[in-house]
Amino acid sequence: MAVSIAHLGPAGTNAEAAALLYANWLEKQNEQAILCPYPSIMQSLKAAALGQVDIAVVPVENSVEGSVTTTLDALWQFDNLRIQSALILPISHALLSRAATIEPIQTIYSHPQALAQCQGWLETHLPNAQLIPTNSTTEALQHLDDDPTIGAISSQRAASLYEVPILASPINDHPDNCTCFWVLSLQPSSGGDRTSLAFSVHDIPGALVKPLQVLAESNINLSRIESRPTKKSLGDYLFFIDLEADSMEPSVQAALAELTRCTETLKVFGSYCILPIPVPDTFT
Amino acid sequence: MAVSIAHLGPAGTNAEAAALLYANWLEKQNEQAILCPYPSIMQSLKAAALGQVDIAVVPVENSVEGSVTTTLDALWQFDNLRIQSALILPISHALLSRAATIEPIQTIYSHPQALAQCQGWLETHLPNAQLIPTNSTTEALQHLDDDPTIGAISSQRAASLYEVPILASPINDHPDNCTCFWVLSLQPSSGGDRTSLAFSVHDIPGALVKPLQVLAESNINLSRIESRPTKKSLGDYLFFIDLEADSMEPSVQAALAELTRCTETLKVFGSYCILPIPVPDTFT
Repeated sequence: MAVSIAHLGPAGTNAEAAALLYANWLEKQNEQAILCPYPSIMQSLKAAALGQVDIAVVPVENSVEGSVTTTLDALWQFDNLRIQSALILPISHALLSRAATIEPIQTIYSHPQALAQCQGWLETHLPNAQLIPTNSTTEALQHLDDDPTIGAISSQRAASLYEVPILASPINDHPDNCTCFWVLSLQPSSGGDRTSLAFSVHDIPGALVKPLQVLAESNINLSRIESRPTKKSLGDYLFFIDLEADSMEPSVQAALAELTRCTETLKVFGSYCILPIPVPDTFT
Repeated sequence: MAVSIAHLGPAGTNAEAAALLYANWLEKQNEQAILCPYPSIMQSLKAAALGQVDIAVVPVENSVEGSVTTTLDALWQFDNLRIQSALILPISHALLSRAATIEPIQTIYSHPQALAQCQGWLETHLPNAQLIPTNSTTEALQHLDDDPTIGAISSQRAASLYEVPILASPINDHPDNCTCFWVLSLQPSSGGDRTSLAFSVHDIPGALVKPLQVLAESNINLSRIESRPTKKSLGDYLFFIDLEADSMEPSVQAALAELTRCTETLKVFGSYCILPIPVPDTFT
């Protein structure tokens, strides 16, 4: 039976590109996959947490904009999900329009993250254009008709899918722009060189130092730390941490047991690897 | 001469409410103030950094959605700005519409953060409504006309300013929703019980532990830690930290000097207090 993969849709989003990459990778292991687009990241994760799909592929971090906070908050909530693997997608933004040149463009539609990632280019080339947010880069294309005053920022892949001409590409300010996605399911994680976890701490001075010391003393390196509000009051946080370590190793298990003692609630989302998947040029 | 205050506009935004509160507080100290709305947080901060206005009032953290990353990223960039004080504004969202009841509403416009903060209420009361993002809660009101199928989420203050009826209020999922704003200028900060700083670290294992140990050993409590990407590559971060300490104190100065030695670049944005400003009911 085909593996069902939930992702933020519709066709043409970067989340769909990541889900497709993972589906291609599964096919190489002789597993068939079917893509299931959802209107939000939250709904993709909920579908996987409730077992309505086998897998969810969701963005967790962009190299320019930072953490995708919706994903972190949802993972704390749906804590039966485990990270199976990660994959990294290069992100490239293009200006799409029916206009012949960029000069007539007065209005540009795109997802707020894409608009932010092209801010410098827009200030230089289209300083007077009005920027209008949309729910996804694909949704932005719905605003394009034959009006040459309208532009949209989306991927080259979306341009080709929806047959819209590209006026300029790439237009992102940071050339090494990329997004890390997590592959999540209800299965136990299979282990790997990275472990992701989150914890809350008791509200006492230095409460965060002790857990970090435990990790440092076990020679476990942190590759990321992110704080998120508990949503109860200002100043009350959860901490999301990525470790360069495999939770299947006895020494790491000992450190995690110690971590349980010096945190309030600890949730380990699994150990996994970054999949070495080559990304075709047509995907970015 | 009146003190000029930059804020995210137009009239009716929460940033304008915070700027107005600060202007009222200045008037009590016999200083006149004039409000200068800007189309983005970035442009408000830039105006203050270039000396085009005296002060910028910008949101830095919401109790539900977390850090306002634009503000942190811009402050690292415009590092001549210093925090003069902080103020806390309770946030209350209302559903505005020309409809007589909520039933006919099919489309709701608002800022993505406001839509996110009312997610639970919307799922219960208007599960099929289409949610459309706008650049500000005030901009959402521009989409309201006499069409009873359209709604907007904004503040009660905006409803009264623009004379739009309130259909439901408050509709935010977390009743204690509030946002902390910073008051920034080119003046040296005047001291207070909180200090905000940011630093980059060398890419070596445990690089973050050492700075946190320095603070713990000096008995300085962290009230917040936030990581932000340097935007160069995935896994390369800046850390923004709030301390419960006054950088004018000799012991804190000694800890900061030690911090300089174990970080790559350290920027101290000043010591300040949260202003005890009462918020009128009409402001939320």
